Amino acid sequence: MRMSGVLVLIFCILSLLLPLLITTASSWCSIKGLPLVRNISELPQDNYGRGGLSHITLAGSAMHGLKEVEVWLQTFSPGSRTPIHRHSCEEIFVVLKGSGTLYLASSSHEKYPGKPQEYFVFANSTFHIPVNDVHQVWNTNEHEDLQMLVVISRPPVKVYANAFLPFP
Amino acid sequence: MRMSGVLVLIFCILSLLLPLLITTASSWCSIKGLPLVRNISELPQDNYGRGGLSHITLAGSAMHGLKEVEVWLQTFSPGSRTPIHRHSCEEIFVVLKGSGTLYLASSSHEKYPGKPQEYFVFANSTFHIPVNDVHQVWNTNEHEDLQMLVVISRPPVKVYANAFLPFP
Repeated sequence: MRMSGVLVLIFCILSLLLPLLITTASSWCSIKGLPLVRNISELPQDNYGRGGLSHITLAGSAMHGLKEVEVWLQTFSPGSRTPIHRHSCEEIFVVLKGSGTLYLASSSHEKYPGKPQEYFVFANSTFHIPVNDVHQVWNTNEHEDLQMLVVISRPPVKVYANAFLPFP
Repeated sequence: MRMSGVLVLIFCILSLLLPLLITTASSWCSIKGLPLVRNISELPQDNYGRGGLSHITLAGSAMHGLKEVEVWLQTFSPGSRTPIHRHSCEEIFVVLKGSGTLYLASSSHEKYPGKPQEYFVFANSTFHIPVNDVHQVWNTNEHEDLQMLVVISRPPVKVYANAFLPFP
């Protein structure tokens, strides 16, 4: 009987502590001990297996606990490019350096997207991709890196790529 | 009778054209005839009555039909600042030029926010404001403009300002 009394006491203490433990855990998950103000040049970069790409997540869902928006800094060396792809989110680009070509095919109302339209993008320009429109960004400038800030909604992004679209 | 026949014919033609008219109108509303790729230096700027501020909406809900995310370019001259405010959305800053001070008071779990913490922000740094946390960004650098890209979710933003908070 004394043993069961001790067990009940432990159960009560744990019940009282549980909300505190949950709060602490979720706070840790959302910021993961990272400083609030981060020096971009010290952030980790990746290329996700694509030659010529440098991808840095400035603020994101996995690392910083954001739920509605994510910001990346992407740099493409001359000749490198994104895959031809689409995603079910809004996407905004701000070109910081260099120039290149955006290929964009509206796919909102068609089963297969049409022939893509070609747009010149350049330093100090901005553009956005409508939800689900198939697109590709290509550094077609032989002499300079193409550097862009990329903003997406609904993180983490789920990319649909298809190599058989009528892209260049 | 011939007159009513003509009216019926006009009615039929209008009925057939109506879906087309609606489609065209909504397409026009979402992009408002703006080019897809926009030169940032040609975009309109405003100061919303705040001396020392230049605000440019790079991509937004009212002008470009975005529903989930909005991107601004904001420049604060030396000494100028945002109001002390909060908003029910995620917000990410990327500092492009200059330096300044972020004041941030967590208000998620309190009726009134506590004393704000002070953070130094600088060119090539990034930070984000948790939903509903009270904050203020101040160009405390006497010599340089503070220029930042600002990303918010849930546009258009609804700002709550309160001058009686324990901010500097």
